[in-house]
Amino acid sequence: MNHESKANSTITIKGILSLLMESLDENNSKRVISLGMGDPTLSTCFPNTKVAEEAVADALHSAKFHGYAPTPGLLQARRAIAKYLSDDLPYELSSDDVFITCGCTQAIDVSFTLLARPAANILLPRPGFPIYELSAAFRQVEVRHYDLLPEKGWEVDLDAIEALADRNTVAIVIINPGNPCGNVYTYHHLEKVYCKNSKMLGTIVIADEVYGHLAFGDNPFVPMGVFGSIVPVLTLGSLSKRWIVPGWRLGWFVTNDPSGTFRKPKVVERIKKYFDLLGGPATFIQAAVPSHNYTDRREMEDIPCISFPCKPQGSMAMMAELNLSLLEDISDDIDFCFKLAKEESVIILPGTARHAREQ
Amino acid sequence: MNHESKANSTITIKGILSLLMESLDENNSKRVISLGMGDPTLSTCFPNTKVAEEAVADALHSAKFHGYAPTPGLLQARRAIAKYLSDDLPYELSSDDVFITCGCTQAIDVSFTLLARPAANILLPRPGFPIYELSAAFRQVEVRHYDLLPEKGWEVDLDAIEALADRNTVAIVIINPGNPCGNVYTYHHLEKVYCKNSKMLGTIVIADEVYGHLAFGDNPFVPMGVFGSIVPVLTLGSLSKRWIVPGWRLGWFVTNDPSGTFRKPKVVERIKKYFDLLGGPATFIQAAVPSHNYTDRREMEDIPCISFPCKPQGSMAMMAELNLSLLEDISDDIDFCFKLAKEESVIILPGTARHAREQ
Repeated sequence: MNHESKANSTITIKGILSLLMESLDENNSKRVISLGMGDPTLSTCFPNTKVAEEAVADALHSAKFHGYAPTPGLLQARRAIAKYLSDDLPYELSSDDVFITCGCTQAIDVSFTLLARPAANILLPRPGFPIYELSAAFRQVEVRHYDLLPEKGWEVDLDAIEALADRNTVAIVIINPGNPCGNVYTYHHLEKVYCKNSKMLGTIVIADEVYGHLAFGDNPFVPMGVFGSIVPVLTLGSLSKRWIVPGWRLGWFVTNDPSGTFRKPKVVERIKKYFDLLGGPATFIQAAVPSHNYTDRREMEDIPCISFPCKPQGSMAMMAELNLSLLEDISDDIDFCFKLAKEESVIILPGTARHAREQ
Repeated sequence: MNHESKANSTITIKGILSLLMESLDENNSKRVISLGMGDPTLSTCFPNTKVAEEAVADALHSAKFHGYAPTPGLLQARRAIAKYLSDDLPYELSSDDVFITCGCTQAIDVSFTLLARPAANILLPRPGFPIYELSAAFRQVEVRHYDLLPEKGWEVDLDAIEALADRNTVAIVIINPGNPCGNVYTYHHLEKVYCKNSKMLGTIVIADEVYGHLAFGDNPFVPMGVFGSIVPVLTLGSLSKRWIVPGWRLGWFVTNDPSGTFRKPKVVERIKKYFDLLGGPATFIQAAVPSHNYTDRREMEDIPCISFPCKPQGSMAMMAELNLSLLEDISDDIDFCFKLAKEESVIILPGTARHAREQ
C-alpha cells in the first residue's frame, strides 16, 4: 500500500466520531453523552478559567496584536512556555527552544515533516493516537508499532523496541500521560525506554505531553525532557487540555536538547523556514499565554461486560476491555460502539489497538 | 541542488526583513518607517474595524467556541466565505468548497502538498511571493518561473507559459491583485492565460487573491473563479488585508470547480484528512467571520533615481526600478535597501525578480 492510499485508509478519531454521531437514533429521547473526544468543553462540569479568557480579550482589545507574529511565535509566549516547562527540568529552556503551533496536532505533523527522509521509520505506540499514522502517511515515513502492555499498566514493550529499531529509525513517539490508555510512566520506566536501550542511541524522542501534569494516580508526571541531555527530545504540548480551551489552537513544539542536535545553525534554520509556511495561531491569543492549574479526577463504576486492565492515572482517556461472551448480538468493539450510540445515545470510541494490529 | 538545500537557500520576506531591521542604525534619530511587509496594522493610519473585533470578543465570551471546530472549519464561517466569494461568480459555491486555514500562507502550502507528486512542476510568477518557492522546496515540487512583463503592466508572459508547461505541470499560480507588482489583471488577460492556452488544459489554477477587491485603478478585480467551469481553480485568500488583521490568521482554501475534479469522493476525502493534521485557526475567531469593506488609495512622489514601470492598481505592494547611474556608492538593490535602512531608517524590500532569475 503506498503512502497516499495509507492516508485515505487511516482511521481518525474525528472520522469515526462523525460516523458514530450519524448513527445516533433521532427518536431516542436519551440525552447524548459524548465521551469520544478529549474535548473537555463539551461538558458543562469543566468550565474554563475566566482569567485566561480575560487575558485573551485584553490582548484582542489592546490593538497591539492584530499584526503578524514572528513565525516561530511571539517572544513573550515562547518565553512563558520555556519557563513553564523548565520548572520540571534539570536545565533551563530558552525561548529559542520553543516554537508555537496550532495545537498539539500541528506540532505532531511538524515533527514528522522535519524528521522525514527516504527510508526513515518511526516507532509508534499501539494503542495510540491515530493522527500519528495519518501524519506518517502524508510525510512518507514508515510506521513501526510497538505494543503497550495492559498487564504491566500499559508500559512499553521494551523487547519490541529492541526488535523494531534499526539505523533508519529516526524517532520513537511516547505519549505520556497516555492516550488512550490513561497511564502515567515512572521515571524508571522512561529511563529504560530511552537510555538503557542501545538500539535507541541517537534516536530522537517525540514526547507527546499534551496531557502533561494531568496525572492523578500513584505515578507523578515526569516530562521526557529530564533525559534531554542524554537523548534529544522533542516535547509536544498545548494549552488545550489544562486550560480546557482546545478550540484556541495553541500548542508547542519544543527542543529539549541541551547537548546540541537541534541547536546546529542549519537545523535551526530549517525549522524556522518550515514555520514560515505554517500560519500559526492568532497573535493576540499568543500574547495572552498565562499559566493556569487544573486537576481532574474520575471514578468508574462496575459494569459486568467491561473491565479495566488498570485504573487510569492520567490524561483524559482510558482503555477498557469488552467481554463479548457477556453480551448478546455484539460482534466486536466497533459494533458495540455503534449500538451504544444508537440505543443509549452514549458515544465512546472503539479501541484502536486491534485495528492497528490488523494493518 | 536538492529540495532540502533549496528550502534553506530560499529567501523569505521575513528573513530579509530581519536582516534589514538589524542593519538599522541605533544612533540614527530618524523614526523607522517600515514598508517592507503587507501588514497594515504597522501603520496607525489604517485602524481595523471595531465591528470585527467585537464579533470576535463576543464569540470568545459566549463560552460556545472554546472546543474543537471541525477540521475543515466551522460551518458558519465556511458558509459566510462561500457566500462572500459567490457574489462575484456566475455560480454558487457551497460551504463544502471552503476549507479554513491559518492565513493565506497555510492555504498556499496546503495547495502544494495536495498537488505534489513525483516529477510534478508548478509555474510561478517572477517577480512573485517567496513563500511559494519555500513551499515547493518542502513539498518537493519543481518550480518553473514565468515572467511578468513591466512594459505590459506586469501582464503574464503568455509565450513563456506555452514554453514552460508540459504534462507534469500540475498547476500555475496567479497572484491577482499582484504582489509585489501592484497590478490588477483584466478579464480578457486572465482568459488568455487559462482558457486560450492549449498547454494549460487540465492544469489547475492556484489563484492567490489575498488582495482580492483591493483594486483602486482602472481594472476592476476579477476573481479567477469566474473561469471555474472551464479550468479547476483553487482560490486562496484571507481576512488579513481587507480586515487589517493579519495576526488573526484566518484564511481559506476554496475549490472553484463546478464541473468536478475536486468533488470526487477520493479527492475530497484526501483534502479532509490533510486538514485533520493542520490545527486550524481558533474556533471563536472562525465563529466571528463577518464581512467588512475596505478600500485603500496611495500616492507616489517623484524621486529621480526611482521609476515605476506602471502605476500600481491594487494589493499593498508596488514594484519600482532603481537607476543606479543616478546613485553614488550603491552596487545593487540589496545594497540600496540596506543603506536606506541604516541611513534613513526606511525599510523597503529588494525586488525578488533579479534573484529569481539568477537561480
